[in-house]
Amino acid sequence: MNDLTQTPEMLIAQLGARARGAAALLAGASDAQKADALCRAAQALRERAPAILAANARDMDNALSNGLSPALLDRLKLNEDRISAAADGVDQVAALANPLGSVIDTAVRPNGLKLSRIRVPLGIVGIIYESRPNVTADAAALCLRAGNAVILRGGSEAKESNRAIHAAMVDGIVAAGLPAEAVQLVPTTDRAAVGALLKASEFVDLIVPRGGKSLVARVQEEARVPVLAHLDGINHSYVDGAADPAMAQALVVNAKMRRTGVCGATETVLIDRSYAHAPALVQVLIDAGCEVRGDTDVQAMDARVKPAADEDWDTEYLDAIVSVGLVGGVDGAIAHIAAHASHHTDAIITEDAETAERFLNAVDSAIVMWNASTQFADGGEFGLGAEIGISTGRLHARGPVALEGLTTYKWIVRGQGQTRP
Amino acid sequence: MNDLTQTPEMLIAQLGARARGAAALLAGASDAQKADALCRAAQALRERAPAILAANARDMDNALSNGLSPALLDRLKLNEDRISAAADGVDQVAALANPLGSVIDTAVRPNGLKLSRIRVPLGIVGIIYESRPNVTADAAALCLRAGNAVILRGGSEAKESNRAIHAAMVDGIVAAGLPAEAVQLVPTTDRAAVGALLKASEFVDLIVPRGGKSLVARVQEEARVPVLAHLDGINHSYVDGAADPAMAQALVVNAKMRRTGVCGATETVLIDRSYAHAPALVQVLIDAGCEVRGDTDVQAMDARVKPAADEDWDTEYLDAIVSVGLVGGVDGAIAHIAAHASHHTDAIITEDAETAERFLNAVDSAIVMWNASTQFADGGEFGLGAEIGISTGRLHARGPVALEGLTTYKWIVRGQGQTRP
Repeated sequence: MNDLTQTPEMLIAQLGARARGAAALLAGASDAQKADALCRAAQALRERAPAILAANARDMDNALSNGLSPALLDRLKLNEDRISAAADGVDQVAALANPLGSVIDTAVRPNGLKLSRIRVPLGIVGIIYESRPNVTADAAALCLRAGNAVILRGGSEAKESNRAIHAAMVDGIVAAGLPAEAVQLVPTTDRAAVGALLKASEFVDLIVPRGGKSLVARVQEEARVPVLAHLDGINHSYVDGAADPAMAQALVVNAKMRRTGVCGATETVLIDRSYAHAPALVQVLIDAGCEVRGDTDVQAMDARVKPAADEDWDTEYLDAIVSVGLVGGVDGAIAHIAAHASHHTDAIITEDAETAERFLNAVDSAIVMWNASTQFADGGEFGLGAEIGISTGRLHARGPVALEGLTTYKWIVRGQGQTRP
Repeated sequence: MNDLTQTPEMLIAQLGARARGAAALLAGASDAQKADALCRAAQALRERAPAILAANARDMDNALSNGLSPALLDRLKLNEDRISAAADGVDQVAALANPLGSVIDTAVRPNGLKLSRIRVPLGIVGIIYESRPNVTADAAALCLRAGNAVILRGGSEAKESNRAIHAAMVDGIVAAGLPAEAVQLVPTTDRAAVGALLKASEFVDLIVPRGGKSLVARVQEEARVPVLAHLDGINHSYVDGAADPAMAQALVVNAKMRRTGVCGATETVLIDRSYAHAPALVQVLIDAGCEVRGDTDVQAMDARVKPAADEDWDTEYLDAIVSVGLVGGVDGAIAHIAAHASHHTDAIITEDAETAERFLNAVDSAIVMWNASTQFADGGEFGLGAEIGISTGRLHARGPVALEGLTTYKWIVRGQGQTRP
């Protein structure tokens, strides 16, 4: 890099200043205009599908020559269906209720001052993501709908696909009379640009990393900007002594095996020592194709159970593997979860309402469930329309984060000339 | 430091583990028990006033020999009235409504899953503060009332006073049957302990710095834990052409001069070029003892006006100084504020409701006011009972932060055996 070259910091400052300008224009735009921009963007995605597929084919060629893993290749790969699904997702975000301007609460003070808190945009959001090019569409849609400007920084392996999808989104935005700079794509895949973005507290109000553990860890380590991070989902399903056996089997198999690679998948099954149907539960998991790792009591239930090592209780397998342990009732489950959970999603299965409420109250996780599959941990399933991520942090937003999590509020005070004594 | 000495990291880990245990016990305590603990703590503060005053006298002696400034000495100094006020503050926090367990929203999904979001404690809060020993009482009270364990790290100049106040708070907490470790004071004033606390993301959920700019800047620079920071209050009062002259004079003088050292003080007065009473407004400010720095138009109004330099428009004086500028109506004011404000508190003075709403909508500050003094920017004035600070950040909590800002939420999902398709 020499004097004639733009530094990463200069690049991010330029993008940031444009985003700031765009955010100011978005603040003056109506909600209908933002929704219209998204409908037009969805249409542009559909119309430009051939160009997007051609760009994706170039990325896939590069990825193959670079020896990307089959899992990453699958994430990178686009086809007509996936583009159509991305466009549908953008349409769905357009159809959500306006998250801005709603009144959170009001008060009238004894001195006559009228207070209200109303929802306003967060400002400028930075998204740092890997592999899946559809994030370019859905993250942009969510940010725009909440009135934010967004700076997208996708992975180098998807750069052609991201550019093509970004161009379609901008087409729709401009057609609706909104500024192109509302959605910007960092025009380089230089890693130093990520570092500059993470430190740009003057320009960026929130960073959302979407990707694997190493990406999230790097972002959390380097960022000087607030981060909405999603860490592990070491989720538990606890089968209480008062569980219905058929329901317990159905829920545990679904929670573990429906899709093993999602963050809402159950990784540890805890079973009450007094539950009579534990062996059948272990058997049905193994029969469903799941490797069961258990303590000595669980190993005694089925010859196919493998011994669990200490680290198994703290492992997010994201695979067809589950650790199974016996605990002393709901209090034993609560204690085990407190020691081992990542506080993402934890469930109890029981017919006893009192026991269930004890669990729901005592387990300190973003999502706690009673008689439901942990795989429901998802913004769409929660009716949020779409999610920018599932936060395992405790500040600002917890669990599935959608439009509301991309807003903040301001206090409005209306007086009649009051001075403070 | 040698092998036999506890490192700052070990010390913070020890405090953090105790806080974690205390937070778990607080989760099982009733709201009445927490309120009772605070009432008992307030009583203990009153009863132990002689010991607290003796401790404070030792701090004052040290401070005098160390040549502390008169302003810092005044902040450090305790007397009967200040201890009584601190105890009253703790009683007031005890009297606030329970911030925990309230339902933020609920939904029933088409598949029958019942969702609710409820307020729960944030967890463990670290408070880093300077000089004023009463923070030991009020921060502890707010954190405890919201179900959090707190780790307090006061300034070295107040260490004896802080210890004495902390001992009284713990007395009350223990008398109510709650764990002493719910409120811990870092037992060393070694600066390395602050560094360790700022990086203890395993143990601390939120850091709140309370002090001067250099403290807040250090905390923001070093922290790996989320920070609720209060930066500058470069606040504006804009006098519109349609302002009532008597109201404008009363508001501007109050907003600037009531107390010049508080973060809600107005630092810049903007006046509409079309406002006929600008010279009288400038005169009344100067007559009230305020130095006015103005642009050339303002200098022409009164011989006592000093020229404003560029940096004056970006300065938080915290003193009897104000910058005064003429702008082109409400849009000129909005543009000036967007360029120079710290987004803390900004006010418009006008009789025109439409102009006022335009300002309230367009100015992106934590607090926006119409016909009210910016000095009302205060948690107590907003009816929040007490505040842990005024956040100038956009994440989690904005403006005055009180009990609600010390909570988070969890999602509770109640099912009837639903599996995810």
